[in-house]
This record gives sequence, structure tokens and C-alpha cells, in this order.
Amino acid sequence: MPNPTAAMLVIGDEILSGRTRDANMHFLAGQLASRGIDMCEVRIVSDVHDRIVAALNDLRAAHDHVFTSGGIGPTHDDITADAVAAAFGVKLDIRDDARAILAEHYARTGLELNAARLRMARIPDGACLIDNPVSSAPGFSLGNVHVMAGVPAVFQAMVAACLPGLAAGSALFSQSLTIQRGEGEIAADLKALADAYPDLSIGCYPFERDGGYGATVVVRGADKGRVDAALVALAETFPEACA
Amino acid sequence: MPNPTAAMLVIGDEILSGRTRDANMHFLAGQLASRGIDMCEVRIVSDVHDRIVAALNDLRAAHDHVFTSGGIGPTHDDITADAVAAAFGVKLDIRDDARAILAEHYARTGLELNAARLRMARIPDGACLIDNPVSSAPGFSLGNVHVMAGVPAVFQAMVAACLPGLAAGSALFSQSLTIQRGEGEIAADLKALADAYPDLSIGCYPFERDGGYGATVVVRGADKGRVDAALVALAETFPEACA
Repeated sequence: MPNPTAAMLVIGDEILSGRTRDANMHFLAGQLASRGIDMCEVRIVSDVHDRIVAALNDLRAAHDHVFTSGGIGPTHDDITADAVAAAFGVKLDIRDDARAILAEHYARTGLELNAARLRMARIPDGACLIDNPVSSAPGFSLGNVHVMAGVPAVFQAMVAACLPGLAAGSALFSQSLTIQRGEGEIAADLKALADAYPDLSIGCYPFERDGGYGATVVVRGADKGRVDAALVALAETFPEACA
Repeated sequence: MPNPTAAMLVIGDEILSGRTRDANMHFLAGQLASRGIDMCEVRIVSDVHDRIVAALNDLRAAHDHVFTSGGIGPTHDDITADAVAAAFGVKLDIRDDARAILAEHYARTGLELNAARLRMARIPDGACLIDNPVSSAPGFSLGNVHVMAGVPAVFQAMVAACLPGLAAGSALFSQSLTIQRGEGEIAADLKALADAYPDLSIGCYPFERDGGYGATVVVRGADKGRVDAALVALAETFPEACA
């Protein structure tokens, strides 16, 4: 059975404007890889309702899971929950269970559960809450869309709460070798290796270091024996390679 | 006249697998912002021909410019040029001007211009070359699609070669204030400010630091006077805010 597929939708003007650098994508990619869920696509869109809705509908039709980050806080520019409700054609309103979580949190911290904070209890009909042990305001899953905060500490906690409930696939085995030669010199041998191991993904990632060119070859596949065999063949072809 | 719009397409299994972290997106976002070209969307797709073609055709129809990174090297997993040619329905072959650039470079460095390296002279019909002062192998522009390398030093050099030829827009003015209060406490006043300045983009980005919550408010707009006026209003509302 093929692995489940996933896409990520990052909602964030601040990333597209170059002001901040996304940290959540790299984290989620690693978490999904370790659970055998294949991250196939990432999209970053601006805080515009119609663009978020269109991207959500594209991605949820094409993949088993969609993970979103950003836009579920209390301020006027937090419009992700509205967009998710619109994409699914369901209503969005303050929900008692989410309100109770916020009421308990703000009572404990001595802050007022005002109208802005109550916005974070607006949950689309039919969604399940995702626990937020960091700052309480929950995320939610609706169908195959998992909606999480953009603040990295909260995003990571929500991923930890959400992922164990999803069907896992077979984590790919991955090994790599670094070769201190330019890609152009090793390309023909690599192509022969890729042709001999069509069941594996063999990627070549060039770099420049201390004025010399090199490449890291990454071999990935579901069968550990095959990955190991390709690595042995690679090491025989390039005896100077190092792990 | 509205600013030109742009999208970026990152081609890279190694990013989706969590192995490496993209560096080019953040760089391009900053460069485009400074030239008044609005980056509206980023997509990251895996090294699969059909997915690259589909994303290219989506993005080039929706935006004035599309910038791609990755997949134009000499190895078997470098398939971007093929995908661009397929997306535009044009032929792809070794072109004399690109071959001459490579021949000069490899003659100078004493390396062989072998079959793998010649792959980097394959240019879709009708494209213009993008200069690569770092490692010679050129990028290219075809229609509104600008195809660049994934290695950050090369990507940056190609952006520097490509951007001056594109029509610029009005760079947005941007100012920010940091407020040491939780988003939930400032949300109502921020919404009133956003309603009073509908021509500006007012974003609120929360953070946690030393156990306390705060938020950075970023005000962006085409009219410097309006951005300044909103900042003055913001500072009056939140006297404890700092730049």
C-alpha cells in the first residue's frame, strides 16, 4: 500500500514579504518523514480569504492530509478558521468546548476572556479540536485538514498532538555519501546507478566548500536492503566518498 | 497601477523530505519587496515531471512573474528545463550560445565538457539566458518564467542578473512597533486602526519571550505619509510600544 500523502499550507504575509523566515515547514517535513507520510507539496499564500480557500480546496482534494500553519489568533488578520469553514461550506461559530478551554486558561492566568480572545473559540461545524498545551487556544481538524498555529512552539505542540492519530506509512530508509567532485564528473555513474535501482530515489545535491565543488548523494527507499545495496555500489564506484 | 505580482516555485525533494532547509525563498522575497514586485505565493514541489509542469502552468497564468529554483544541474534528477519546455509546449535542445559558455568555462578550469555537463546547455526554444557569474552554467527566462539554480550562491547571482530587466513597482513602505502585551489585549484597538486605514496592511505577529507574550505590529503601504500616520496613531494607543 502506498504511503499517505500530505501537503502543507502556510498562511503568512510576513513570510512572503521577506520579513520573517518560516520555521514550521522544515519541522513538519521531518516529522512526516519519520512517520512514513509523504510530504508532496508546500504552498505559502498571503492573508487573503479567497486565496486561502482556493489553496485549501486544491490541496485537500489532491492529498490525504493538509496541514496549515498561521492565522488562528485573536487579531483582525487571523482569518484561517473562516477560510476553512468557507472551503468546506460549513458554519463557523463560538463552540462551547473551545470556549471552556479558553475560560479556564484565562481564569487561571488572571486575564480577561474578551471578544478578541473569544474569536479563538470559533470552530467550524464538525471539526475536532487539537490540543494546545502551550497557550491553550486550540487548533482543529476538519475532514483531512489540520489547522495549527503559526508560532513555532505552538505549531510543534499541535503537530505532536495531531500526528499520532493519523495512519502512518512506511518510513523511508535514507543514506547519504558525500563526494568531493563536481556533479558533472559523477553524473554518468549516478545515472547508471539510478537506472539499476529504479525503486529508489537517488538525489544529488551539489555544494561549494573551501573553493572546491562536491556533491551529497542521498539514497532513499522503502526497502532497507536495497538502500544498503545501492550505497555499497556507490561507495565502490567512488572510493573517495565519505559518509 | 498595481504592482507586478510574482510567485516562486521551489523544486526540491530534499526540502520536502526535511533533509535541508530552503534558503532561496527568504532571499527572493526580500529582493522582490525592495523592487515593488508583490510575492503572492510560493510552492514547493517534488522532483516529479508532471507536478512541476502543473505547478508552472498554474503559476504562470496567475502571476506576472514566476521564479523557479533548483533542478538545472547535470545529474539525472535535474529535470526542470524539460518541465519548463513541456509546460510551454516548446522544444528543448542543446543551444550553441549556452554550449559556448560552458566550453569556455571548462576549458579555463581544465575540466572536460562531458555529456552530463552538456545537459546544462539544453535550453527551451525561445528562452533568453540568465548569466551565472559563479559557475557559468546559465539559467534562462521563457515568457514570464525565470529559471534559476538551487545552490544559494548561484541562485542569488542569477536573481541579481535577472531582476534589473523586469518592470519594478512601488516598493511598499513598512514600519513596525513591538508591544509587550498579548495579542488578545491589543486586538480590538488594532482592528479599529485597520478599519481606519483600509489602504494599509496591518499585520500582528505574536511572540513569547522570557515567559511573557508580546506582538510585533507591522504596517505596510504604498503611501509613506499614511504609514507614518498609522504608526503615530499606534504609538498613541500603546505608549509602551517600542520600535
